[in-house]
Amino acid sequence: MPESLAGCTVHIVGLGLMGGSLALALRGQVERLTGHDLIPEAVEHARRTGAIDEESASAQGADIIVLAIPADRIVSQVAALDARPGALVIDLGSTKTQICAALDRLPDGVRAVGGHPMCGLAENGYQHAISTLYRGARFVLCETARTTPDARALAEALVHAVGAHPLWMDRCRHDELTALTSHLPHLLNFALMRLAMARAAQDPDVYALAAGGFDGATRLARTAESMIAGMFSTNAHELRRAAAELREHLDALECLLDDAPALQRELGAIVEARRAYTTAYGERLIT
Amino acid sequence: MPESLAGCTVHIVGLGLMGGSLALALRGQVERLTGHDLIPEAVEHARRTGAIDEESASAQGADIIVLAIPADRIVSQVAALDARPGALVIDLGSTKTQICAALDRLPDGVRAVGGHPMCGLAENGYQHAISTLYRGARFVLCETARTTPDARALAEALVHAVGAHPLWMDRCRHDELTALTSHLPHLLNFALMRLAMARAAQDPDVYALAAGGFDGATRLARTAESMIAGMFSTNAHELRRAAAELREHLDALECLLDDAPALQRELGAIVEARRAYTTAYGERLIT
Repeated sequence: MPESLAGCTVHIVGLGLMGGSLALALRGQVERLTGHDLIPEAVEHARRTGAIDEESASAQGADIIVLAIPADRIVSQVAALDARPGALVIDLGSTKTQICAALDRLPDGVRAVGGHPMCGLAENGYQHAISTLYRGARFVLCETARTTPDARALAEALVHAVGAHPLWMDRCRHDELTALTSHLPHLLNFALMRLAMARAAQDPDVYALAAGGFDGATRLARTAESMIAGMFSTNAHELRRAAAELREHLDALECLLDDAPALQRELGAIVEARRAYTTAYGERLIT
Repeated sequence: MPESLAGCTVHIVGLGLMGGSLALALRGQVERLTGHDLIPEAVEHARRTGAIDEESASAQGADIIVLAIPADRIVSQVAALDARPGALVIDLGSTKTQICAALDRLPDGVRAVGGHPMCGLAENGYQHAISTLYRGARFVLCETARTTPDARALAEALVHAVGAHPLWMDRCRHDELTALTSHLPHLLNFALMRLAMARAAQDPDVYALAAGGFDGATRLARTAESMIAGMFSTNAHELRRAAAELREHLDALECLLDDAPALQRELGAIVEARRAYTTAYGERLIT
């Protein structure tokens, strides 16, 4: 008989946007929710709004332990995790290779699955958490050396419980793909904002001519730096590779800047691809 | 006595998103609206919905002529414009140096002001036009050799009539600032989408891991290529300069990728600047 999510105590480490929203989505679907966060106000807010039943600094009483902290901190903290034998550890980190390698080294008997839900907001913190955040999102799951068949089933049950769709994937492949689809967009948003800051230091009028285009292209630079630094530093190699490729595509477009007809043909093919993408996948606004 | 906008016949060349929205916003505030577009369906749609009173291929009957076509086409078509003496020509082009130079060469007696409303949507075409598009936006105005004091006043009246705020600015300064705040964001969106296309050609799974971050960072690549090619090609020099600076800021961030604490400090300063910007200017979503 498969293990039931309904009978589980779930412990969430990190009650920010992702951990808090997961807790809110799990309410009423599990036996008990506990949690911990370095920010006392986040814990108090989560307790007061019923996201967790109780604060707990320990994971020992939990059947499922969810690590919802920055990726670099997951890597460094997994070794010290006080998970009891039989517990399932799952993380929500935005990179998977280094995290899964840390999960591989958990004690025999502790079960573990790497996870990455493909959803979020530009803002962080429990005050932005919503129970519907995961609804309809793909939720990447990665096997580790501690993934048993029943761990797979329980992880999938958790994903379904928050309204998301499990997508099993190799850890390296995840990091290669998300370097392009997520980490590089973040890096470009931060680099553009950094450039605007440098110009604004010399010329305060820069922002007077900024509008929706600039706002949208720097929106990801609102995300908490601890999350982004963890994301970048644990996938630095793939991110550098994606950034190098991006520079080549910038080169290709810059070469055409003085040739309007050729430029228009080139841009037309890109617009067509972007529209086909929207038709296939919909359009997701990060608000 | 100042010239009255209410008594003017306004002729709009280009009934897309910007020209169509301007026409809708001017309804009831001017004597008569005429317009022209290369797409017969746009003209018919604009006439049927009351944005224009009548189609006209000629600008000869107009007191105010609004050029709402791609920037490179404004540059090439101004010389052939059949404006009558005393008429005011104003454009909505996203670059100003080359366009204002063309406006400088209009016949003596024809008046002209360069214009650039800082608003828009990612989509183009009359079917997306809305009467409120200009409301609250800054609307850059540039003097030309054909700008008289009464031309200034009439241009400002037009800007106020659509709910926008006039902002007089030197043409070169406009192009320098918008290269950073608008044209470079567009170029980066197109370059990222071009990279995704290249990867997707070899690996169809790329888009499976794309979500809001990717969508937001490629959203500007939905804009019609004719508009973007005109924008890029008429400000190529400043755009290349902004892109070169962006590469330096990418370099600076890439250098820190392996040093999470230093990276976090650096990103923290950028997040702080982005939040201060939002506090000062609000947040504009391009939908």
